[in-house]
Amino acid sequence: MSEPKTADEPEENVGILNSNSFDPAALDSLTGELHDLVARRSVLGPCYRLFYHKPLHLVRGRGTRLFDADGTEYLDMYNNIPSIGHSNPVVTEAVTRQLGLINTHTRYVHENILDYAEELLATMPAALDCIMFMCSGSEANDLAVRCAQLYSGGEGIIVTSEAYHGNTALISGFSPSIGHDVPMSRTMRMIPSPDTYRLGTDDIGEWMCGRISEQIADMRRHGIEFAGVLLDSIFSSDGVVPGRAGFLKPVVDLVHAEGGVYIADEVQPGFCRTGKAFWGFARHGIEPDIVTMGKPMANGIPCSAMAIKSEVLDAFAERNPYFNTFAGNPVAMAAARAVLHYMQDNDLLAHVDRIGDALVAELERIAAAHPVLGDIRGTGLFVGVDIVRPGTTEPDRALAVRLIEQLRENRVLISLCGATGSILKIRPPLVFDEEDLAFFADALERSLTQLGA
Amino acid sequence: MSEPKTADEPEENVGILNSNSFDPAALDSLTGELHDLVARRSVLGPCYRLFYHKPLHLVRGRGTRLFDADGTEYLDMYNNIPSIGHSNPVVTEAVTRQLGLINTHTRYVHENILDYAEELLATMPAALDCIMFMCSGSEANDLAVRCAQLYSGGEGIIVTSEAYHGNTALISGFSPSIGHDVPMSRTMRMIPSPDTYRLGTDDIGEWMCGRISEQIADMRRHGIEFAGVLLDSIFSSDGVVPGRAGFLKPVVDLVHAEGGVYIADEVQPGFCRTGKAFWGFARHGIEPDIVTMGKPMANGIPCSAMAIKSEVLDAFAERNPYFNTFAGNPVAMAAARAVLHYMQDNDLLAHVDRIGDALVAELERIAAAHPVLGDIRGTGLFVGVDIVRPGTTEPDRALAVRLIEQLRENRVLISLCGATGSILKIRPPLVFDEEDLAFFADALERSLTQLGA
Repeated sequence: MSEPKTADEPEENVGILNSNSFDPAALDSLTGELHDLVARRSVLGPCYRLFYHKPLHLVRGRGTRLFDADGTEYLDMYNNIPSIGHSNPVVTEAVTRQLGLINTHTRYVHENILDYAEELLATMPAALDCIMFMCSGSEANDLAVRCAQLYSGGEGIIVTSEAYHGNTALISGFSPSIGHDVPMSRTMRMIPSPDTYRLGTDDIGEWMCGRISEQIADMRRHGIEFAGVLLDSIFSSDGVVPGRAGFLKPVVDLVHAEGGVYIADEVQPGFCRTGKAFWGFARHGIEPDIVTMGKPMANGIPCSAMAIKSEVLDAFAERNPYFNTFAGNPVAMAAARAVLHYMQDNDLLAHVDRIGDALVAELERIAAAHPVLGDIRGTGLFVGVDIVRPGTTEPDRALAVRLIEQLRENRVLISLCGATGSILKIRPPLVFDEEDLAFFADALERSLTQLGA
Repeated sequence: MSEPKTADEPEENVGILNSNSFDPAALDSLTGELHDLVARRSVLGPCYRLFYHKPLHLVRGRGTRLFDADGTEYLDMYNNIPSIGHSNPVVTEAVTRQLGLINTHTRYVHENILDYAEELLATMPAALDCIMFMCSGSEANDLAVRCAQLYSGGEGIIVTSEAYHGNTALISGFSPSIGHDVPMSRTMRMIPSPDTYRLGTDDIGEWMCGRISEQIADMRRHGIEFAGVLLDSIFSSDGVVPGRAGFLKPVVDLVHAEGGVYIADEVQPGFCRTGKAFWGFARHGIEPDIVTMGKPMANGIPCSAMAIKSEVLDAFAERNPYFNTFAGNPVAMAAARAVLHYMQDNDLLAHVDRIGDALVAELERIAAAHPVLGDIRGTGLFVGVDIVRPGTTEPDRALAVRLIEQLRENRVLISLCGATGSILKIRPPLVFDEEDLAFFADALERSLTQLGA
């Protein structure tokens, strides 16, 4: 799933000067080639944003490392699209080979889409027996919501209050983190972010059920029938909330008891990211009705998908054909298959699980000396760290912004999320290793010390 | 733009057995590897369709030619995505080179998106001064409609009655050709397909203005303010309607006089396709407020865009950030730039103009002996041919379906469009040449003779 500007820099709360994005009014603070490149971006209009007060001009990447135009090397602790590493040659080879053969669409028979579809569904519960392909996570969620609405006969969708699920007209209305000025869907209801830190427990299934029941009652009061929930399995934009494995079980049961469809948005948590299981939902032992996925699927070649129970799809399929020109084409499928094989052949899941635990342990060690790291919660290689005023749970957005700028000075790229944009979002490529961890821990300790935090 | 099943095979009119798509119930009519591959497609669910009563298993392509698993060679007269030819090595080289360097997103500075944005906007009127990138034509139209609505303050959008503009929740509602069972947007109004053949003139600007005025009046009667029109510049799904160059001028003037936004959907007509000008709208000498594009943009690497006047974009931009994970990434931009350079370096526009005239001349020669070819209308390499009962303008859908199946037997791939699915949609890769033309003309003559038509 693409992420909103506001998941990382919620301007409505803090203003651009206190965010981790470049302020276009500060163009004159830049010099040389960077100044000229940023100036030329006016051709893209005002909707685009750049990370950092001094934007990065990246020209090369390999594994977990990125290189800017001056040759400076950075450790990438943020980008999950190049999940098997920047410029992984297995993807380049697969794409190059297939581009040399053929790249048509799904109205002709081709084995790539079938081979991949079967292999990918084999990673999921058997009830998820159909898979359809799209180009972006937004398109996958757009279709998923329509399927849920037609199957349930309702229109009401529940999301979390800082969720981001995509940028289409429909899905923007289910993505409150895009910003307070963007109108939300009239048939959408929000529950609060499942903030395990401030709720004081990581076992929040019953708490979520209570909030969801309230919102179902409210939508029915307004004549809107419940269609289902659309939930990121690790609540990425809400602040990264792994919680106790299994806490989502009562939520699925409640959704089904109320006649709704459970859509697991796996655009960020999927594909080994959360360790323990290939899918974020699988870590909870639940069986969603629909699973959407995207970002890391083909290491940057546009590719997304919706896996669905065939009985849920039937309500859509009996009225709607679906064709998506580029989606599922032989090149995208070759790239996606190369990614999946790389993950399986290298047992990336076990690696992520092991190194993810080591990452959390290092963060906890550092937090002991730096109490601004108020809460550390992670599973696999997806970790959220609340930056707070020491001794409190009060978010310190200003420090969080200074910290990621300081980390950049110390050659580590990272970003922020959550309602107040004060939570470190740690999500490196999955090939992150012990050497990377040592580099990161050193940079984080130095950055905190340099900031007097 | 992806195209609907029903633009090519309007099942609601004719039933699948009389369409040019494979009937899944006929699986047992297939044998060997093809049977097994088609059987495996059940994993994709019931929304997917295959061309032809006996589906094609294509394994290789080069230029205008496609090869199936048995080694049989076909002339591709239909696919516009591989606009500079199937497997063109300039795209493979550009993609391979960039994949080896870096493939991040638009929150870091990269020159590829800037170089391409500037070069692409240089092909358009200066007033179209901003460009934003997406992954699919659907996403481009989805955003374009939202921009038009926010700029105009209205919600009402007018399209043609057989239009196809995409597959998102919003844009499905503006795509009547998807099928009669798909609910259309309540704020959408349709005008009839601009059927120059049956209207008896190709100068239909005033006729269109009359129909649009009626629909604006109707939407206002219902309390819906007019937001604009969304029109394919050659009305691809309505049956391919080039019309007299310039006939769209009064339409643009009317739309502006009524406070609306003119969105030119160039997903099919753009990128030299219609000859005379790089863009379908430019052939008419008009200046749209928004231009959407996709299909041929990067020869099959997912890539689309929306060019827009900055004053129209501002209404959206002041409330909405926009981020699209894969869109505008360095690899997609490298592929798109390779396509654009290939078109410019080889003066493909002049080639398309010349060979397109020759194609129409050949079709007219053949029609003299085969009066089932009732109307031939083309510009550049986009030609529609109405298949009719001789001496009448009555569509002959059954013959049209038999003709494309017969053409396939004679090694030519082509498809159908229009309300009754009886119009040949001729739209080969733009590298189509004299040898291809001779092959096509021979196959068409033989096919018609074999069918006794």
